[in-house]
Amino acid sequence: MAIALIVLAAGQGTRMNSDLPKVLHRIGAAPLIAHALAAGRALDPERVIVVAGHGADRVTAAVAKIDPEAEVVLQTEQLGTGHAVAQALPALAGFEGRVIVLYGDTPFIRPETLERLAEAPADVTVLGFEAADPGRYGRLIAQGTALDRIVEYKDATDEERAVTLCNSGVIACDAEILAELVADLGNDNAAGEYYLTDIIAAARERGLTAEVVTCPEEETLGINTRAELARAEALFQRRSRAEAQENGVTMVDPETVYFALDTYLGRDVTVGPHVVFGPEVTVESGAAIEAFCHLEGCHISRGATIGPFARLRPGAELAEDVHVGNFVEVKNSILGEGVKVGHLTYLGDADVGEGTNIGAGTVTCNYDGVFKHRTTIGAHAFIGSDTMLVAPVTVGDGALTGSGSTITQDVPPGALALGRARQVVKPGLATKLFEMLRAKKSALKKGA
Amino acid sequence: MAIALIVLAAGQGTRMNSDLPKVLHRIGAAPLIAHALAAGRALDPERVIVVAGHGADRVTAAVAKIDPEAEVVLQTEQLGTGHAVAQALPALAGFEGRVIVLYGDTPFIRPETLERLAEAPADVTVLGFEAADPGRYGRLIAQGTALDRIVEYKDATDEERAVTLCNSGVIACDAEILAELVADLGNDNAAGEYYLTDIIAAARERGLTAEVVTCPEEETLGINTRAELARAEALFQRRSRAEAQENGVTMVDPETVYFALDTYLGRDVTVGPHVVFGPEVTVESGAAIEAFCHLEGCHISRGATIGPFARLRPGAELAEDVHVGNFVEVKNSILGEGVKVGHLTYLGDADVGEGTNIGAGTVTCNYDGVFKHRTTIGAHAFIGSDTMLVAPVTVGDGALTGSGSTITQDVPPGALALGRARQVVKPGLATKLFEMLRAKKSALKKGA
Amino acid sequence: MAIALIVLAAGQGTRMNSDLPKVLHRIGAAPLIAHALAAGRALDPERVIVVAGHGADRVTAAVAKIDPEAEVVLQTEQLGTGHAVAQALPALAGFEGRVIVLYGDTPFIRPETLERLAEAPADVTVLGFEAADPGRYGRLIAQGTALDRIVEYKDATDEERAVTLCNSGVIACDAEILAELVADLGNDNAAGEYYLTDIIAAARERGLTAEVVTCPEEETLGINTRAELARAEALFQRRSRAEAQENGVTMVDPETVYFALDTYLGRDVTVGPHVVFGPEVTVESGAAIEAFCHLEGCHISRGATIGPFARLRPGAELAEDVHVGNFVEVKNSILGEGVKVGHLTYLGDADVGEGTNIGAGTVTCNYDGVFKHRTTIGAHAFIGSDTMLVAPVTVGDGALTGSGSTITQDVPPGALALGRARQVVKPGLATKLFEMLRAKKSALKKGA
Repeated sequence: MAIALIVLAAGQGTRMNSDLPKVLHRIGAAPLIAHALAAGRALDPERVIVVAGHGADRVTAAVAKIDPEAEVVLQTEQLGTGHAVAQALPALAGFEGRVIVLYGDTPFIRPETLERLAEAPADVTVLGFEAADPGRYGRLIAQGTALDRIVEYKDATDEERAVTLCNSGVIACDAEILAELVADLGNDNAAGEYYLTDIIAAARERGLTAEVVTCPEEETLGINTRAELARAEALFQRRSRAEAQENGVTMVDPETVYFALDTYLGRDVTVGPHVVFGPEVTVESGAAIEAFCHLEGCHISRGATIGPFARLRPGAELAEDVHVGNFVEVKNSILGEGVKVGHLTYLGDADVGEGTNIGAGTVTCNYDGVFKHRTTIGAHAFIGSDTMLVAPVTVGDGALTGSGSTITQDVPPGALALGRARQVVKPGLATKLFEMLRAKKSALKKGA
Repeated sequence: MAIALIVLAAGQGTRMNSDLPKVLHRIGAAPLIAHALAAGRALDPERVIVVAGHGADRVTAAVAKIDPEAEVVLQTEQLGTGHAVAQALPALAGFEGRVIVLYGDTPFIRPETLERLAEAPADVTVLGFEAADPGRYGRLIAQGTALDRIVEYKDATDEERAVTLCNSGVIACDAEILAELVADLGNDNAAGEYYLTDIIAAARERGLTAEVVTCPEEETLGINTRAELARAEALFQRRSRAEAQENGVTMVDPETVYFALDTYLGRDVTVGPHVVFGPEVTVESGAAIEAFCHLEGCHISRGATIGPFARLRPGAELAEDVHVGNFVEVKNSILGEGVKVGHLTYLGDADVGEGTNIGAGTVTCNYDGVFKHRTTIGAHAFIGSDTMLVAPVTVGDGALTGSGSTITQDVPPGALALGRARQVVKPGLATKLFEMLRAKKSALKKGA
Repeated sequence: MAIALIVLAAGQGTRMNSDLPKVLHRIGAAPLIAHALAAGRALDPERVIVVAGHGADRVTAAVAKIDPEAEVVLQTEQLGTGHAVAQALPALAGFEGRVIVLYGDTPFIRPETLERLAEAPADVTVLGFEAADPGRYGRLIAQGTALDRIVEYKDATDEERAVTLCNSGVIACDAEILAELVADLGNDNAAGEYYLTDIIAAARERGLTAEVVTCPEEETLGINTRAELARAEALFQRRSRAEAQENGVTMVDPETVYFALDTYLGRDVTVGPHVVFGPEVTVESGAAIEAFCHLEGCHISRGATIGPFARLRPGAELAEDVHVGNFVEVKNSILGEGVKVGHLTYLGDADVGEGTNIGAGTVTCNYDGVFKHRTTIGAHAFIGSDTMLVAPVTVGDGALTGSGSTITQDVPPGALALGRARQVVKPGLATKLFEMLRAKKSALKKGA
């Protein structure tokens, strides 16, 4: 069956107390809407339509990065969920099949849940959940899976309020029927808004069938405050950590390891305390990430050891058995098998051949104030401590640079390159200098 | 109404198992007594008297830094709370108004609570709390807010022990009355101590009125062990985190962000996991603090991005859009708008003009072994990687230093400064050197 | 009484989903089996026999490091606990006394518990525990401490299942009796395995006495999954943190401090958030460890201050009042009293005399690609920032190295050593260079 998604993402999120549109707040290092889109995208939909409103420019830009095939439509006035869906209908023109309406601030919904919702045979299906504390949620009045009606809390009788099956707001509906039902929505209510929920009553009046599909309450969790955002982040992390453990990852203290939406860790990967995985990190089996590491956009191969206190930035590609040690930053660089970068180094825009050793304090000087340039280092080379590699520059296979050298010209394979002054020793001069300084200090003290 | 505070801070805190006086143990990066003094200081008191005893020298020194207008008096023998207050009375000479007696090891009391206590109309007011587990606390026997008497647990009848309204020990009293009551205190008890609590009975005997003012139990929390200290720290952090969230701060994992008593974070500030705020940090709206940062005594302006792995020390003043990256330390330095210090750098005692870029591995050599000196860098300058700036030294606007240079003399605006040796390449020499070393190694192995 | 230990360590731990043998997974930075061996070793046993099976090579190598006097025997087929003990019996030849059988994956058992087990007067003693949730554990049917029999859950009557005293599997038995009982074990059961548990029934049949010794359930905790491993780690850390607090250690947030099995922290040591203690760390009274430190195999003396962001590696020996600051790594080095290493430094294989100051960006170049060499620095020396010390090299007492120098030859006491080029200034050249680069950039843009 053909599927289309409408993702409602127009709300301001007043209670977030933020200039950032609500759906762009992040959990798992990805905007809330990225989670919703990822769940929906798993159903291989023909069309994905995002309804933006508050901060539409920023939402549009973000969606373009997350899901370039999604179309963003604008809801210029916030007149309710029914009105929001109405804005999306023109973009559905010509589409035949099932439409799922979901929410950009509801990040935990699972693809399997959306599939069950889409495949239910009724004309309209609503996603419900058994609420631990139903509070002011709308209630789903149903006989088994057959949905009779949705009652808003304020309109509910005591008997209806005793029902614990609640409305998540997520629905699925045939495209043509949805268009008709939405077109007929009224706004005759206190807020003067068009409520998507009202299509159920309208459907039932027309003799159409409605059905409830249920999921755990957790999946329907929406986010309205910073505190809820932090709780959602905690839930996301808890899930990610448990999943990693099941896949054979050891974490000394799982509570201090932060996953992104797309982190992949292989079997027997070990992770120390206090490790942050930003977006797009893959770690192959058996690699070890020590404490205090910060990783983004990088690939770590088997047998590699990282940290403690290492930072890998986007484009860091580490082959097998690479070692990146403390206070080392690697960005947009490819490190061959067995490369060692142990201490206090910045490798940016570099290619390093297998078996090469990079000394402490090495820097690839990749920026000249206007352009960025690349550094190429061959295999089995030895870069002495505190070597400045002024890019663009190439150091050949098996070459050596003396510690403290600034390398501005290419070094041929097997060559030794030095760029440092000869050492000069001035006997007794340190003693004299310190005597002078200390004399000055005591003179100052007496004068004061 | 004129207010005076007496803060009792003489106790040793035996159960802390420490050489440090109890009130100098810290939560929120500030001594316990700083919390009590801050709450009291909010009432704008005319006089603040701290009673020190154990470790009085250290307490006196700490109080002088926290609240220079406070007067410290000495209790040379520890003969009870009544005796401690008696030591403070001479320092109250001539004061007319309300005296509040509070405790240096009770950090959570709120200014509003102290205000209510001071403003209650009775001759003596006692701060009470409904105890979840009253245990061995003294009980307040009251009719409504009218306090009849305080009964110590050991003297209480079963009926009195059933009372859950307990004594915090904090009292407020007219200065003149307090002096009279304290002068008349006896020490006819098992411990031979003078108990401040006994003034209630004495007041009632004289026909004076006594009243209870209540507060949540949490506010009366005192600290006696390291474990209690850790729990108090946790409570302080929980409060600070929740407050920051309400003010529009996003924290990926609030549980791993540590606040100081005076941390200020603006709206839409984002904070990664594992960030420590030491004393005196202010961060303006919209700045981003990444994971693994350690900040003290610094000011961060709008749009600035800090970390991961950055350390800002006292006197770091960052203008708008500054970037301080990984493994960078900034101390007592002023960075102009848009300055970038991306990697592995130490900036100490420096002024850096707007738009300047500081290369990786740069160090301001600010210490000559005896004196500290300042480094001045102009606007839109480019400091090459691994530049040593031997202070005092000035680099002009738009100037450039070559990577690997040691700069000992001023660089005029627009000039290029180099302080490095020309590169020399010795073809084949690396190959030879490594061959020799490996030959030596295998010879050693054979010999062994 | 003479004691021998048999430690069963042959299991694969299928549910760990790991290539690493189960007993080599770690908590408190030590393999599970190290915990069991440490508890057993406290009884001063005459013999310690480890039964290895899955991954026997790795287990053997690990045991050799943990407890060199332990003997490892091989169980080539996994035919049950009784069969495992049978493999150990030849290694007990000639031993007279009490044998304790314990488990390599049960890290929390206390020496006191094992002592009570060994000293109980019966012929065979079994360690039992009152289970909060007895589930499918075997039940101990006893009259007081007299053990009648062990009933497996699947064979138990309802009445027997109501018993909450459960079998830990740990037993103690006279060596000769154990040998006889084990020799007679059968494998007539569904799994076709030899169960050690069956020796109780056999002993009772022969008229021997059996007894139960009990311990808290926590001590019997075994580990079968990564999630259980993480929970065991959490339990270990909780215990270690509480113990440190009782000993007078202040931790800002104990939950973020990680202890190893052998960490020792003195009184009034303060520890910031996010500190990881690897194996073999001792910290003397009054030292301060700031946030974000990673310490292994090091000794820190009184008054030393470490971090934030410091890493001490094995062989770092710090005398009193040493300061190791941010982004500093110290490995296999001895630092004399009052040495300061404040920033961005790597000290490896170095000896530094008292009162010496090491400037930011200093590196001991201790590796030439084949050999490691030592650096020696005298007392009260001053190493300028970004000094490269090319080992083997010696800097004398009171000597000074200029910042940016590469030191390849020894520096006599009191001498000044420089190894850097004279500064050259080219007026206006920076301006020209940037103009050229920007012109090139805009030409490229136009061309694009």
